[in-house]
Amino acid sequence: MAEFFKNIGPIKYEGADSTNPLAFKHYNPSEVILGKTMEEHLRFASCYWHNFCWDGADVFGGGTFGRPWLAAGDPMEKAKEKANVAFEFFSKLGAPYYCFHDIDVAPEGNSVEEYVSNFAVMTDVLAQKQEETGMKLLWGTANVFSNPRFMSGASTNPDPEVFARAATQVFHAMNATKKLGGANYVLWGGREGYETLLNTELKRERDQMGRFMSMVVEHKYKIGFDGLLLIEPKPQEPTKHQYDYDTATVYGFLKEFGLEKEFAVNIEANHATLSGHSFHHEIATAFALGIFGSIDANRGDAQLGWDTDQFPNSVEEMTLICYEILKNGGYTSGGFNFDTKLRRQSIDAEDLFIGHIGGMDTCALGLKKAAAILESDFIAAHKSKRYAGWDSDLGKAILSGDYSLEALAGYTLDKKLDPKHVSGKQEQLENLVNQVLFR
Amino acid sequence: MAEFFKNIGPIKYEGADSTNPLAFKHYNPSEVILGKTMEEHLRFASCYWHNFCWDGADVFGGGTFGRPWLAAGDPMEKAKEKANVAFEFFSKLGAPYYCFHDIDVAPEGNSVEEYVSNFAVMTDVLAQKQEETGMKLLWGTANVFSNPRFMSGASTNPDPEVFARAATQVFHAMNATKKLGGANYVLWGGREGYETLLNTELKRERDQMGRFMSMVVEHKYKIGFDGLLLIEPKPQEPTKHQYDYDTATVYGFLKEFGLEKEFAVNIEANHATLSGHSFHHEIATAFALGIFGSIDANRGDAQLGWDTDQFPNSVEEMTLICYEILKNGGYTSGGFNFDTKLRRQSIDAEDLFIGHIGGMDTCALGLKKAAAILESDFIAAHKSKRYAGWDSDLGKAILSGDYSLEALAGYTLDKKLDPKHVSGKQEQLENLVNQVLFR
Amino acid sequence: MAEFFKNIGPIKYEGADSTNPLAFKHYNPSEVILGKTMEEHLRFASCYWHNFCWDGADVFGGGTFGRPWLAAGDPMEKAKEKANVAFEFFSKLGAPYYCFHDIDVAPEGNSVEEYVSNFAVMTDVLAQKQEETGMKLLWGTANVFSNPRFMSGASTNPDPEVFARAATQVFHAMNATKKLGGANYVLWGGREGYETLLNTELKRERDQMGRFMSMVVEHKYKIGFDGLLLIEPKPQEPTKHQYDYDTATVYGFLKEFGLEKEFAVNIEANHATLSGHSFHHEIATAFALGIFGSIDANRGDAQLGWDTDQFPNSVEEMTLICYEILKNGGYTSGGFNFDTKLRRQSIDAEDLFIGHIGGMDTCALGLKKAAAILESDFIAAHKSKRYAGWDSDLGKAILSGDYSLEALAGYTLDKKLDPKHVSGKQEQLENLVNQVLFR
Amino acid sequence: MAEFFKNIGPIKYEGADSTNPLAFKHYNPSEVILGKTMEEHLRFASCYWHNFCWDGADVFGGGTFGRPWLAAGDPMEKAKEKANVAFEFFSKLGAPYYCFHDIDVAPEGNSVEEYVSNFAVMTDVLAQKQEETGMKLLWGTANVFSNPRFMSGASTNPDPEVFARAATQVFHAMNATKKLGGANYVLWGGREGYETLLNTELKRERDQMGRFMSMVVEHKYKIGFDGLLLIEPKPQEPTKHQYDYDTATVYGFLKEFGLEKEFAVNIEANHATLSGHSFHHEIATAFALGIFGSIDANRGDAQLGWDTDQFPNSVEEMTLICYEILKNGGYTSGGFNFDTKLRRQSIDAEDLFIGHIGGMDTCALGLKKAAAILESDFIAAHKSKRYAGWDSDLGKAILSGDYSLEALAGYTLDKKLDPKHVSGKQEQLENLVNQVLFR
Repeated sequence: MAEFFKNIGPIKYEGADSTNPLAFKHYNPSEVILGKTMEEHLRFASCYWHNFCWDGADVFGGGTFGRPWLAAGDPMEKAKEKANVAFEFFSKLGAPYYCFHDIDVAPEGNSVEEYVSNFAVMTDVLAQKQEETGMKLLWGTANVFSNPRFMSGASTNPDPEVFARAATQVFHAMNATKKLGGANYVLWGGREGYETLLNTELKRERDQMGRFMSMVVEHKYKIGFDGLLLIEPKPQEPTKHQYDYDTATVYGFLKEFGLEKEFAVNIEANHATLSGHSFHHEIATAFALGIFGSIDANRGDAQLGWDTDQFPNSVEEMTLICYEILKNGGYTSGGFNFDTKLRRQSIDAEDLFIGHIGGMDTCALGLKKAAAILESDFIAAHKSKRYAGWDSDLGKAILSGDYSLEALAGYTLDKKLDPKHVSGKQEQLENLVNQVLFR
Repeated sequence: MAEFFKNIGPIKYEGADSTNPLAFKHYNPSEVILGKTMEEHLRFASCYWHNFCWDGADVFGGGTFGRPWLAAGDPMEKAKEKANVAFEFFSKLGAPYYCFHDIDVAPEGNSVEEYVSNFAVMTDVLAQKQEETGMKLLWGTANVFSNPRFMSGASTNPDPEVFARAATQVFHAMNATKKLGGANYVLWGGREGYETLLNTELKRERDQMGRFMSMVVEHKYKIGFDGLLLIEPKPQEPTKHQYDYDTATVYGFLKEFGLEKEFAVNIEANHATLSGHSFHHEIATAFALGIFGSIDANRGDAQLGWDTDQFPNSVEEMTLICYEILKNGGYTSGGFNFDTKLRRQSIDAEDLFIGHIGGMDTCALGLKKAAAILESDFIAAHKSKRYAGWDSDLGKAILSGDYSLEALAGYTLDKKLDPKHVSGKQEQLENLVNQVLFR
Repeated sequence: MAEFFKNIGPIKYEGADSTNPLAFKHYNPSEVILGKTMEEHLRFASCYWHNFCWDGADVFGGGTFGRPWLAAGDPMEKAKEKANVAFEFFSKLGAPYYCFHDIDVAPEGNSVEEYVSNFAVMTDVLAQKQEETGMKLLWGTANVFSNPRFMSGASTNPDPEVFARAATQVFHAMNATKKLGGANYVLWGGREGYETLLNTELKRERDQMGRFMSMVVEHKYKIGFDGLLLIEPKPQEPTKHQYDYDTATVYGFLKEFGLEKEFAVNIEANHATLSGHSFHHEIATAFALGIFGSIDANRGDAQLGWDTDQFPNSVEEMTLICYEILKNGGYTSGGFNFDTKLRRQSIDAEDLFIGHIGGMDTCALGLKKAAAILESDFIAAHKSKRYAGWDSDLGKAILSGDYSLEALAGYTLDKKLDPKHVSGKQEQLENLVNQVLFR
Repeated sequence: MAEFFKNIGPIKYEGADSTNPLAFKHYNPSEVILGKTMEEHLRFASCYWHNFCWDGADVFGGGTFGRPWLAAGDPMEKAKEKANVAFEFFSKLGAPYYCFHDIDVAPEGNSVEEYVSNFAVMTDVLAQKQEETGMKLLWGTANVFSNPRFMSGASTNPDPEVFARAATQVFHAMNATKKLGGANYVLWGGREGYETLLNTELKRERDQMGRFMSMVVEHKYKIGFDGLLLIEPKPQEPTKHQYDYDTATVYGFLKEFGLEKEFAVNIEANHATLSGHSFHHEIATAFALGIFGSIDANRGDAQLGWDTDQFPNSVEEMTLICYEILKNGGYTSGGFNFDTKLRRQSIDAEDLFIGHIGGMDTCALGLKKAAAILESDFIAAHKSKRYAGWDSDLGKAILSGDYSLEALAGYTLDKKLDPKHVSGKQEQLENLVNQVLFR
């Protein structure tokens, strides 16, 4: 079993002044922040698909990377070669977790039987690799969007036989995730959406998807999978409109089908911005709705209208994300996954490491800066003062339902209420955050 | 009581070849389409605010229109002058309905007492005007966003006294709407949102808003108002993020507070597109979720990122909207309201009529074209064929819960399911729609 | 030579009421409009690449179409098979022109020599096909963006050897275009742009591109090619920023290198909207700058941030495009090309025809409606009246340079100029356009 | 002459750990960076209009700030009161420059005579204020977009008398700028654009604007004004399309009228992003085209489609801006102006200081970080290596015109050129920048 990344050893923490591009400058796994190690806080994962199943092709041109394991050959042999390279990379990088789709790791084959047997074999290979390397699985998932049969959706397909094929993959992917000790299972609605309303029955497709998700929940309990079930919102791409548009939309869907206690969201930075929200907004909304689960940290490009899946590199943004997570108690079973793609021009094998190192350092810095904010939590202090009125008698009475509209209108008139508006201090709060960032 | 629009009489239907800019070319109120008159189908309303409370100012410059009733003067006298002009316009235009905010029609005054008394006087004036002209009220609403006290929200304000002031206005606006026979009452969350998460507690503000809306529902029943309560989604502007982002978000909010049977949505075309959706999408989603209520037909500009509130002029778009409405049984208490602004350069008094005539003709054409589609409903026929599998045994069994994930995976393997993908025929359906539009 | 589209004969005009999806409803090639046939006005072309080199793959999944000529096989044999199908399609469709990239029609081979010889052979095949079918070439072009060597640009590549490879392809593609009687030659700067400014020298790359374009001009004259040279603007995709962002940007570039008389623009509807402009804007700007050349009529989706290349289907939009073209004298060597992609779900062979028929009917309707506007050209009449002041003494004197700033300030003060603002009548003009559209 | 900011003294530099919200943490005017003081590098300016002419109104509500000098009163008295407050603010803040529009400082009056005399009086007041406080003028400009007469443009207005009124204002504003020792004169094309092409003649309006700009150049030389003439690009807002869309568009316009040596651009961060570009792109493009002039540093909100004019607070972004400026030799007559608006909820008088302090600290940090990058300029080193081929014989020969297309194609074939693609190292460069930012 030949090494692929020949001149690269395990990535180490060397501190902020290191000139080694293949070292962490800020991510120090064992460093303790607010009572936990950075590794425990950040729970990093690297993905199988963009790193090992993609050769740099885009819509306008072919692969640029020239990965040998993607060349022609016997599918199962190539799958094993790919697994070797992937686990070499995962274990050298030093992120404790990885993530995969079923068909990232095993060839689909030419029939459902072949799919099942190929995937079973490769699940065993992964189990062995995990044991050899100590890698853990953050989540598994099924790819029910790439095969042409899913071109019109999986659970929302107009053909129930396609629903059945998707169910088959999710059944096996959930089982594999359980077997491999996965911390979560993810559903991303790749083509659960529509291209045109002219051929789409929204209500029918919603009902199909609701039923599918209920089946997933039932199966979770049946097999005793104790990880979280996660839905990954995305607004569009590949379909014109995707049903899991954003966190608020997913919440409404879950409520409709009584599933809001069973699923949490896996929020992707780039999906957040494509849906017209900030990454921060999506995280804060998920916590407010009680459905925060995990994160795909890959960012977009502010000038582009599609999913570029770049490595996170804004510490300014990541600090507020980490603040929100720490403030709400940290990850339970989720973590920071990198659903990241190298730029198509970043063709050196080492670029895979360099990209991840930059992303992990960005998160590590975000964590440290967020912890620094929390030391003297001026954000919480400001909010507490700002909303103090709601802890007064009037505020409490209103919220507890003591006032009807009429009674409150009467009270207003009696008291001749004339509240003065108070500065929101946005600029001051922004300055305080920057002071922590660049002290 | 002087006439303002001196040389303009009631607008008449003159047919498609009329060269009179002040005549309808397609809106013929009494023409019967699919068993109802156009007037009954379309339920047009014109708005008080943009037409009579705005002088053409924008962020970069002052008013261009020079409306005399907006000049300096005794506030109540000017309010009455404004009402005269407004009802002269409404009744000459021939849209059967109008809409207003409380402070469009009555001066706010310098205290809550003055607000109450001014609004009471003007409600009587409106009642009298309605009687004189035969005009009806499509909906009333309260403006709880313009006054500086609402700069940080109304029900979501950090100060409960501001909540109380907002409650007072909504109390009086609901009562006035009931008194004036309004068909609906609307809530638009003007500043119910946030500018920065640094000073905002999302969960707390959600709870405040939930309580507010529950109070509105309780009051509705108390006063026996039998119209619909409507929420108008909008994603941003004036605040960076508005809580009633889009229809799906509103639905989730309603479900959280158990209000989904009590509210429907008032969908604005321009708000739909600002939220990243097509107008058609928002309408279809509202029907799919069972919360369709009414429409603000004003469109945006595809190149601009703010609410331009232009008159609708795309028959291509409006036809699909009307198809969706007709297909779902038509309006109950809702209607097509024009929350439209003249372009700031359209300063002639007659432009107010011309803009509305264009918008009404666009809707009328949309209705006629939609009715033509329905004659041989190729859209429904295509969908019916496309989803036929779900009416088969397998489809029914899946939806009724007969299959677990495991059972369905087993079935798939047993039957060696290998469903073939089928053309979505998007281009053909688009061609068929165009054929109806331009026959 | 087997027929591929077996049950489809030449597409015929059958009129607005035809129920045949494989017939034109409005495009009647020989119908005379304003003194020219529709065929002469519209100069339709169909493209080789999306129709015959693409199998329905997108970033999230593989091909759905299953085109036999794209299956594995001897490259030159498959290229000939592809040419057979392409010309069967072109000639049955009845658009008089087609367009191609060099490597659409001939395999790249494994060396520059193979490229040259393959392309020479296939150019002869195309020549023969043109003779057999009567098809003509609207334009040829070279694909210098798909091969990995072009990942960092062609003429703007940091490596001059890549520039040389691009030059080689353009040399042969221009020669082939000349040989095949092409009416134009197009340059689309596929990857002439940047991904990050951190590794990009803007000025250097501009100079390289300027030199490249000058070489193209010199070669044009050398070989006596008398068609137009066209640049196709696009703002982003595949690169983050493309140098030929929009028409105004291209104009500035041409002026910098003294090439503004040598190139015109090939405007794509979808590229226009991605750059933040309306399609209409780009056309009108090109005419105002004297660089209008040709059109790629494919539209985008208003909710999506990437190039969807859909068939045009808005007659409302196309009418204004045709008005602009007719008003400026019509096409010279350009035409309406369909750089269109079927939706990935439109997998039936007939969908290729259906998509084009819809697009061609949309343009035909646009032409007829534009001609109807021109009959009583209310747009021109309105503009003429609106700008009348510039034909007065003052207007002429200003434009001819008679006034300095000081003299004009003095004149203003002397005359106490106090011009009144006049209605722009936007709504009225929009209504008049709609009246023509839906008479 | 009463103090308005009573408890606020001159803002001082107190270092990164200061807890005083009214102190600079990073901007230390006299600190020397790369041989110049921070004050000399950054050349900060504060604006008259948003700070002193705006009371917090937006399209959805009235003023929230309650500035006393904007209350009713004798116009000239209020203008003097405003000047007192403005210069108190400017001089306490410690930015060395300010900027103004003519009608920010002087009332327009009811006639052109009143405009001229009011402005003359107030110019003297400003001159005296400058002398008293030591403040300098970065640039002056004329507001030819707010008055209703400019609703359809100033120089591009359909009425030449409006052109003449605009010329009058620019004449006086240029003279005042010269008299006050202004370093630059700015033209922002507020309403030089269009709302609809239906009533607009693009070519005619371009010619009018070209003539206007030529008059400005002639006047500059006539009065011996030796500052730069600047154009401020903006893509839309208030008009649907503005002619000075972005830097590349302005360059093309200047070239058309032979003015590219006479004007430079004043780039606003928020205008850059509204035009679909990064702020960095616009700066780099201006340098590449040789037309960089000055900067308005105010940023937008990534989720909003209009000009929010927020204080800059991203050091990550500002560092690359400062790098670009330093690399190109720094400002000549330009500087960092804050065309910034407080958030409407930031109503405390001190918020005006706090916002500017944050913005100035952001720029100061950007400058320091950029200087740190320049120490070991890895960006330049990478570029130099990347483009090395263009300094080889082949590269030089191509650029100097030694090769025709044919000759280069021949060379390619002879040499069997097969260049290999090389990694762009984007992630590595991004990591290196972050390492400097967060060392």
